[in-house]
Amino acid sequence: MLTKAKIKYINALSLKKNRTQDSIFIAEGIKTMEEILNSDFSVKEIYCTKEVFNYFSTLIKKETLLVEVSENELEKISLLKTPQKVLALVEQKKAHLVLTDLENKLNLFLDDINDPGNMGTILRIAAWFGIENIICSNDCVDVYNPKVVQATMGAIAGKNIVYVDKTDFFKKVKTETKLPIFGTFLDGSTIYDEVLAKSGIIVLGSEAHGISPEIETFITKKLYIPSFATQMQGVESLNVAVAAAIVCSEFRRR
Amino acid sequence: MLTKAKIKYINALSLKKNRTQDSIFIAEGIKTMEEILNSDFSVKEIYCTKEVFNYFSTLIKKETLLVEVSENELEKISLLKTPQKVLALVEQKKAHLVLTDLENKLNLFLDDINDPGNMGTILRIAAWFGIENIICSNDCVDVYNPKVVQATMGAIAGKNIVYVDKTDFFKKVKTETKLPIFGTFLDGSTIYDEVLAKSGIIVLGSEAHGISPEIETFITKKLYIPSFATQMQGVESLNVAVAAAIVCSEFRRR
Repeated sequence: MLTKAKIKYINALSLKKNRTQDSIFIAEGIKTMEEILNSDFSVKEIYCTKEVFNYFSTLIKKETLLVEVSENELEKISLLKTPQKVLALVEQKKAHLVLTDLENKLNLFLDDINDPGNMGTILRIAAWFGIENIICSNDCVDVYNPKVVQATMGAIAGKNIVYVDKTDFFKKVKTETKLPIFGTFLDGSTIYDEVLAKSGIIVLGSEAHGISPEIETFITKKLYIPSFATQMQGVESLNVAVAAAIVCSEFRRR
Repeated sequence: MLTKAKIKYINALSLKKNRTQDSIFIAEGIKTMEEILNSDFSVKEIYCTKEVFNYFSTLIKKETLLVEVSENELEKISLLKTPQKVLALVEQKKAHLVLTDLENKLNLFLDDINDPGNMGTILRIAAWFGIENIICSNDCVDVYNPKVVQATMGAIAGKNIVYVDKTDFFKKVKTETKLPIFGTFLDGSTIYDEVLAKSGIIVLGSEAHGISPEIETFITKKLYIPSFATQMQGVESLNVAVAAAIVCSEFRRR
């Protein structure tokens, strides 16, 4: 059973200010919840239908409140068109960034990524390629936006995601580390032929504007994913998540 | 000016049966329209705001009807939350498949791809990597679905897209050609280490079920995109468009 006040509270979490105030986010779907319960996230409350209640009762830790709800009740709190049997309130992680954590690793920097679907897909790619540090410019979409969480398919777990002032961040990287900084540009050198470092920061530019001019000045190696398009197949760019996948694959395969 | 009947007609084109009946589809947005006008698609009618009317009048061929509409009118016919200054009715292409067209080329086969965003992104990837033949199983989403067209960003042009009965198609491929058939599977061999052919058919499986069992029997080489995930980063699969990008990149870079 859900009280009206609880429904109102959960609905309000679709807004960032409310999520941030309580340091809570909404996760939905069985697969996503399995991953989150298997991670170091603290799950506060789980609302699920009768069908999966017993299953989730075997997965939860003692801090978690598990509540059975009707399909009708789940519809009232779900943000999905087709609710997926389970919705949970999960505590946001306080991420901290120490520059030495970035050493000897591949790291991603997201430069004003606005689209929740792209952000979620990038986090899923990062998980696949074993990249744990995701540094976001302050103008990126909130990683705890429900559409981002949904698109990660649970791959929000096991990551260190921080938001930074981008110029300050790269100034510090330049003065305090020797990490190379990579980005893709139309005038970059073909990624397939390059010797790529095992560690560094890969910058992914925004959907509309690519890598911003203030960050471009910090790039130490410009790369390019070559196109094999024929004349009739006009396509000027790859989707940012698609480019991320190809770049991560190229760094890892060597 | 738009008549009520015209508004009703355009709205009805969001349904596949109406699109198929008149062999028409809707395209929206300046970039998409630039690509389509630059291709061999036949554009029937363009509705655009005053701001871009002169621009489009320089791009159209004489068969095209160009109509200025108010922002309010455009909102009534647009399928987008934020209409993008221009909407057009374009004639669908009658695609025919001759198996010999597939020889000496890389081709994509889509096995029940349902999500319009994924389908559109795959078409954009295909354009980037110069793949012109896209063979879809009959259960794939309609390529002329407005959400697919939108996600292609114009990369629907310059392609040969056909729908087939998938079992019939692969039986014919096996008996009439020597084309290798590739697909990614968890028990495949690492794609990075494989010698990959310059021609053949790459099969992309559905979001929910992967490559279907009846198609798996036709695969001549099973491939695998290795994961570099750490233990805490539970992620069991890559999005199908992301996997498509990595596979196409691997085939093309050699």
